[in-house]
Amino acid sequence: MKAALLSVGTELLMGQITNTNAVYLSRELNYRGIDVMYHYTVGDNPERLAEIINLAFRDCDLVITTGGLGPTQDDMTKEIACEVMGDELVMHPEILESIRRRMAGYKITEMTPNNRKQAEMPSRAVIFRNSCGTAPGFALENIEGTKAIACMPGPPREMKTMFEKSVAQWLEEKTDSVLFYRELKCFGIGESELETVLLPLIDGQTDPTIATYAKEGECSVRVASKRATREEAEKAVDEMTEKVCDIVGKFVYSKDNEELSQVVSKMLKDRKLTLSSAESCTGGLFAAAVTDIPGSSEIFPGGFVTYSNEAKMRDLGVKKETLEKYGAVSEETALEMAEGARRKTGADIGISVTGIAGPGGETEEKHPGLAYVGFVYGDKSLCRKIDRKMNDRRRNRSHSVMVMFETLLQNI
Amino acid sequence: MKAALLSVGTELLMGQITNTNAVYLSRELNYRGIDVMYHYTVGDNPERLAEIINLAFRDCDLVITTGGLGPTQDDMTKEIACEVMGDELVMHPEILESIRRRMAGYKITEMTPNNRKQAEMPSRAVIFRNSCGTAPGFALENIEGTKAIACMPGPPREMKTMFEKSVAQWLEEKTDSVLFYRELKCFGIGESELETVLLPLIDGQTDPTIATYAKEGECSVRVASKRATREEAEKAVDEMTEKVCDIVGKFVYSKDNEELSQVVSKMLKDRKLTLSSAESCTGGLFAAAVTDIPGSSEIFPGGFVTYSNEAKMRDLGVKKETLEKYGAVSEETALEMAEGARRKTGADIGISVTGIAGPGGETEEKHPGLAYVGFVYGDKSLCRKIDRKMNDRRRNRSHSVMVMFETLLQNI
Repeated sequence: MKAALLSVGTELLMGQITNTNAVYLSRELNYRGIDVMYHYTVGDNPERLAEIINLAFRDCDLVITTGGLGPTQDDMTKEIACEVMGDELVMHPEILESIRRRMAGYKITEMTPNNRKQAEMPSRAVIFRNSCGTAPGFALENIEGTKAIACMPGPPREMKTMFEKSVAQWLEEKTDSVLFYRELKCFGIGESELETVLLPLIDGQTDPTIATYAKEGECSVRVASKRATREEAEKAVDEMTEKVCDIVGKFVYSKDNEELSQVVSKMLKDRKLTLSSAESCTGGLFAAAVTDIPGSSEIFPGGFVTYSNEAKMRDLGVKKETLEKYGAVSEETALEMAEGARRKTGADIGISVTGIAGPGGETEEKHPGLAYVGFVYGDKSLCRKIDRKMNDRRRNRSHSVMVMFETLLQNI
Repeated sequence: MKAALLSVGTELLMGQITNTNAVYLSRELNYRGIDVMYHYTVGDNPERLAEIINLAFRDCDLVITTGGLGPTQDDMTKEIACEVMGDELVMHPEILESIRRRMAGYKITEMTPNNRKQAEMPSRAVIFRNSCGTAPGFALENIEGTKAIACMPGPPREMKTMFEKSVAQWLEEKTDSVLFYRELKCFGIGESELETVLLPLIDGQTDPTIATYAKEGECSVRVASKRATREEAEKAVDEMTEKVCDIVGKFVYSKDNEELSQVVSKMLKDRKLTLSSAESCTGGLFAAAVTDIPGSSEIFPGGFVTYSNEAKMRDLGVKKETLEKYGAVSEETALEMAEGARRKTGADIGISVTGIAGPGGETEEKHPGLAYVGFVYGDKSLCRKIDRKMNDRRRNRSHSVMVMFETLLQNI
C-alpha cells in the first residue's frame, strides 16, 4: 500500500511549530509495510486542499491528514474529504450528545452552530473517538473502495492517542494483518557496527524485518513482524529477537524501548538499593535524570553538585592533597567524590563525575571532553575515564550522564 | 513573493528524522515577507521531484529545496533543477580545486567520478559555499527571470549556515530589501494576553511587523522590519521596540532572544554575586540549567539535591520541627533550605524549591503541582508559592525551574 501524509495548518507554513506528526506517522506506517511516498503541508485553503488530495491519489491508495478538524470556519478538512470521496456530511446524534455533555461539564448550555458543525461527519465514515480533545477523526473510502482517506486532529497528543487507539486497528483491518514490534535499546556499540554485525540477519529480510536507528550516543534495533494474528507476529518477533541477542545481546539493555535511566532505576528498586550522586561538570544533570522518574525517592535520597574545589572538600570530604596532587579532574578526585556522596547520605552506591565540559577550561594536559566517572558499591570501587576531545558542552555533559548510567548498569 | 519548500530524502519519508529544515526556513522566509504556500517532501526519485517543482511553480515564484545534493547516484536535485529551469551542468574548476584540496587533507589523491560530479553546477547558477560540508548549494533562475530555485544540502547545520551566510543575502538582493528583527522574551504574561494588550500596535501593521510566539511557559514578541538598508530597518525596529516596551516592558527580560538562565547568569556575573541552590522536586534541574552556561563556576560554587527529609536536615540544616510541623512541602521548609544552601556554601544568594511533581505523592492538603520557591539574599528572604494542580511531572519540574530564575531576576 502506498500512502501520502497531508498536514493542514497555517502555523506550520508560518514556521511557528515543527511538524512532528509527519515523522511519527511515517515511522508507524513504514513499520506496517505501508510506503510513504509524500509529505505535503498546506494552509486552510479549500482549493489547494482538494488539489493536493487528488494529486496524492494519483499514485497513492491512502491519504492521512492531520489538522483542520476544529470548529471554526477555516477548518475545512472534513468538507474537502467528503467532496473528494463523493460523500456528504450528516449529523451524528451520538457525537452531538457527547459534545453537549462535555460543554455541560464546563457549565455551557448554549450550542453555537460551530459546536454543531463538529458533530457532522461523512455518511459513510468510520468515526475515531478523540479521548484527549473535542474534534473526532474519521476514515472514509471512495465508493469503489480503492482509495481511503483518514483524517485526524492536528495537536500531536490528540493525533497520537487517536492513532494508537483507533487508526492502527483500522489500518490492520484494511491490510488484513497485525503488526508487532520490539525496540531493543543498545549501548557501547555504534549504529554502523551494529548494522554490520547484524547484516547476515538483515540481508534479504522479508518478515520479521530488522532495522537499526541512532540517536545521540544511543542506538536501537527494531524487530517487526506483520502477520495474520498478533500471536503469530509476536512469536516471529520473539524468535528473531533471540537471534539478534545471540549476536549483540551484551549491548542490549532494554527489549521494551526503555531509557537507560529507567532500566537502572528499576534495577535499583528491585534490589532495594539506594544511590547518591556527586556531580561536577554535569552540574545536576544526572540527578535530574534519576529524579525524572516517578517514585525516585525510594532509590535516591539526594545528591551533590560540587562545582568548586571548596564544595568538593566541604560537602564530600575530598582531600585537599588529592585536589592539589592530581587536580579536580582526575581518577583520584572522582573516587573520593563517589565515596563522599555514599558516606554522607548513607546510600548503598555512590556515583560521581568530574570533567571539563568546555568550551574553555582546558589546561596543558587536560582538554574539554575529558571526564572521570567514579563508582563505589560495597567493596567495589572503580573509575571510568571518558576522553572525547570534543568542545561541545551540551554533548559532553549528556555523554557523561550516559556513562554514569552505563557504569551503574554494568556494576550492580 | 510566494514560496514552496521541498525537502528531498527517503529518510524523512521513512520517519527516521524530523523535518526541522522546513520549520526553520518557513520562519526565516515569513520574517522576510515571503509567503510560504507549501511544504513538500519526496524521496530521491527524478520524476516525482520534477513533477513537484513544476507543480509548485504554478503558483509560487520561488522553490527552496534541501537535500539530494550529495555525491552519490541517487542524489538528483541538481540535475532536476537544471532540467526544470532550462539550464545545463558545467564543470566549475574552482569547486573541483576546493574538493581536491579537501581530499588531500584526508590524504586521498584519487578522484572518483562521484567527486567530480560535485564540482558540476548549472551554467547560470549563483553558487553558495558550504562551510560545514562538501556539497555546495546554488540558486538558479529561469531564462525569463520570473521563477527561481535555491538548492541547499539536507543536514540542518550545513543548511542553516549556508542560509545565514549566503542565501539570506541572495534573497535580499532579489527582494531589494534588508530584514532586521529583535526577539523580546517575556515572562509572567500569557501569549493571548500579550497579543491583546499589543493589539493597538498589531492591528493594521505593515512595517515593522509585530508577532507573538509561545513556547512552554514562555512567550516572546518579534519585531521585524524590511527596509532598503539595514540602518533604516534597525531604526524602525528600535522605535517599535520602544513602543512595545512602553506597554509590556515590565514582562520583557531580554531583547536579544536570550534564555532566562543566561540573563540571570549574566546579571550575577556583572554584580559579582554567587548563588547556591537546594532542590527537592526538581532534583538537580535548576543546577543543570545554571551550569549549562559556560563559565558558570564564577557564579555557582555548587548546589544540593535533597530529596529525602534526612538529606534536607543533614545537608542544609533544615530543622526537624519544621518538617514535622509544616511538612517538607511548605514555605517554612523552602526558606530553611535556601538559607542552608547559602550558609553551607558561603554564597551570596540561596535559592530553593520543594514541591510535589507528581504523578502520585499527594496528601490530603497537598497535590501534584504545588511547590514553594525559597529565596535569601542579604537581609531579604521571601517565598513564592506555585499552585498548578497539574499532574504532569516533566512540566511541573520545568515550570518550577523557571519560577526560580524569575525569582532571582526580580529580586537581585
